[in-house]
Amino acid sequence: MVIKVQGALMSLNSLISVKKATERIESLKFPLKSQNIPLETAYGRISAENICALLDAPPFDRAAMDGYALRSMDTVQSSPKNPLYLDVVDDIGAGESSNLKLNQNQAVRISTGAPIPPGADAVIMKEKVEESDFQIKVTEGVTIHQDVALKGEDFHRGDALLSEGQLLNPNQIALVASAGINQVKVVKKPAIGIINTGNELIEPTINPKPNMIINSNKYALIGLVGECLARSYQYLCKDDLEDLKKQLKQAAKSYDAVITTGGTAISKGDVVLEAVQELGEVLFHGVSIKPGKPLGFGIVDGKPVFMLSGYPVAAAVQFDFFVRPSLFRMQGIDFRMKFQEFEVGSEVKSAKDKFTVMRACLDDEIVYPLRTKAGINKSITNSNCYLILDEDTGKLNKGEMCPVIKYEDLRIC
Amino acid sequence: MVIKVQGALMSLNSLISVKKATERIESLKFPLKSQNIPLETAYGRISAENICALLDAPPFDRAAMDGYALRSMDTVQSSPKNPLYLDVVDDIGAGESSNLKLNQNQAVRISTGAPIPPGADAVIMKEKVEESDFQIKVTEGVTIHQDVALKGEDFHRGDALLSEGQLLNPNQIALVASAGINQVKVVKKPAIGIINTGNELIEPTINPKPNMIINSNKYALIGLVGECLARSYQYLCKDDLEDLKKQLKQAAKSYDAVITTGGTAISKGDVVLEAVQELGEVLFHGVSIKPGKPLGFGIVDGKPVFMLSGYPVAAAVQFDFFVRPSLFRMQGIDFRMKFQEFEVGSEVKSAKDKFTVMRACLDDEIVYPLRTKAGINKSITNSNCYLILDEDTGKLNKGEMCPVIKYEDLRIC
Repeated sequence: MVIKVQGALMSLNSLISVKKATERIESLKFPLKSQNIPLETAYGRISAENICALLDAPPFDRAAMDGYALRSMDTVQSSPKNPLYLDVVDDIGAGESSNLKLNQNQAVRISTGAPIPPGADAVIMKEKVEESDFQIKVTEGVTIHQDVALKGEDFHRGDALLSEGQLLNPNQIALVASAGINQVKVVKKPAIGIINTGNELIEPTINPKPNMIINSNKYALIGLVGECLARSYQYLCKDDLEDLKKQLKQAAKSYDAVITTGGTAISKGDVVLEAVQELGEVLFHGVSIKPGKPLGFGIVDGKPVFMLSGYPVAAAVQFDFFVRPSLFRMQGIDFRMKFQEFEVGSEVKSAKDKFTVMRACLDDEIVYPLRTKAGINKSITNSNCYLILDEDTGKLNKGEMCPVIKYEDLRIC
Repeated sequence: MVIKVQGALMSLNSLISVKKATERIESLKFPLKSQNIPLETAYGRISAENICALLDAPPFDRAAMDGYALRSMDTVQSSPKNPLYLDVVDDIGAGESSNLKLNQNQAVRISTGAPIPPGADAVIMKEKVEESDFQIKVTEGVTIHQDVALKGEDFHRGDALLSEGQLLNPNQIALVASAGINQVKVVKKPAIGIINTGNELIEPTINPKPNMIINSNKYALIGLVGECLARSYQYLCKDDLEDLKKQLKQAAKSYDAVITTGGTAISKGDVVLEAVQELGEVLFHGVSIKPGKPLGFGIVDGKPVFMLSGYPVAAAVQFDFFVRPSLFRMQGIDFRMKFQEFEVGSEVKSAKDKFTVMRACLDDEIVYPLRTKAGINKSITNSNCYLILDEDTGKLNKGEMCPVIKYEDLRIC
């Protein structure tokens, strides 16, 4: 099977490098719309704007403790031997305020968070004074602004609080709220059409016929797409060109991106490449990565179409290296694969001339590759990282350093 | 204010240790119900059962590559100089099967994933043979089981796939699907009633009156509760004992746990402790932690009530150390706070006799505490970890080791 690629001809025998494939995907932009939502529903969404504070926080000088607002200058000479008695002239509870201006040797009882009354410049904690009817006894000097939360000490009006492309976490949302903001512009959640192709695919059953295979990719992709903060819509399609074209056309029209599985190798009934080529354009097919070589990427109706393998392990690797970064970038998230170097716990060899991705276990700073066949899906759940050998690595001996991507670093939450 | 605690009397002057407070919360169990859900909706849920495979995976020997199924013994002498010609007697595409038994020097064209026909015991990749009409030319020896995914090689019927209390991630769900399972028993999502108390609390606005404070805790808690895989329901309550009792009673009846903010210190209008004591029981009030000392914990209508501070930073620390572990445990998740030791980048002092929690930045294996007042909410978003000094630490010099909890380790996703 030969696929037209940007005017050139290409078969699976000429593979492009992981770097080239990544560059080609990244060279295209698929920006999403944004929407205003109430701040109450912003947790876990991606900011579509830079957010600046609309007010100073606190907006006024406030008591930082339950106690008594006073004039610090009145207390300069007070000590246990020289106690100071202040007249308590008012009482400001939570949600209350007072316009009474403090005169010399006066104090106002005040609750945490209440505004400091005019004239006062400090608060003394209630535990530090002796209280009697209408008077307190102060036996220490109180410094100016003691236990006062000053206007603007958290942030000032105009201060940058949040950048475009940031995931809104609980404390950021609280900060935005305290900056006077009650709605926020976020990126629309991407909607992803998933088309699992294959005459052999069935839903989970305990009695599969020998010619049938449980469509586990559907279930993996629901979650993988979910990890990218996107919504997925699942379709199943037989290996039939016309049916697939119909579904693909509809999915490209309805969703922000399409992911297919299966039908990208060159065997009987592999129709995905053909369908994409007829409806739009195949930009590449075949990447020098193992597992995951038959990856295809194309455009239909202006939407990216990621053509993944039917093999679950290959599909997972293809998703992590090519689809995941793209779904994040689409949302304006500055996501980069995080490679870290660790010592390998045993000899490893790369596949010939291939960017080789092994499932591995990182334990106590040493990375151990799993010895496993490509079809062992349990190898994904039994591992915690990818061990990467690039095209030129060849062999690494035990104790040599090797790049690793932790699965936990693939997520942004 | 004096609170009855299990028959004893206790005021905020007698604080219990963080360890004791944790033990007291942990001594009580608040298990949640479970529910069966379709596997399609299981991503991000917590398994409420141990799951074992209902079948072998693969359930039959399958082709691992596109190629030709053959009898390996036929090929023992084949080489480029001594090529073997096999008759292609059938063609098994995806979703197809064949009951034709292979005889000597016969082969069957086969697609990846298709069942190996009777008599065959290996597959040779199509790239390795020369194909002509009804025949292939084999020029190498093929080992038994070459490119065959053997029945049960991924897992066997009865193998444990998943444990109770595990977060269902994409690849685990795919594994469960491939084990023949289409629904799963998960823990009911906890529903948490949040009651923010305070006459001074208002929704975000750019023109707050001096006596009003934007209720940022509501927004922080929506997200924090969300991080614990729970749903939150928000209520606002004035500092009024009867109103609060009414809301608290309703919330305890409706939800799996209640979180309050504000009203736990001993100042004018602090009514939360009183309300809990009248409706149920206060189990402790006052913990030797800084920030977060006025934490209260009680039971109303059999439900836990976490009484947090009104101060956002204190409430966040109380949530992370006491509420978060409890919400996880409620769901059967084996969550432990993960303390790691790092060098401190500057001198740090603990608050006298208090378990001291500082917001800090961990950078290149060195932890730097933020110098900040308690009211600086931005200190949470500007930090990436807690630096912990326990009651006995006193002072640590630059370069000494200190326990740290990374914020990322507080989440389980």
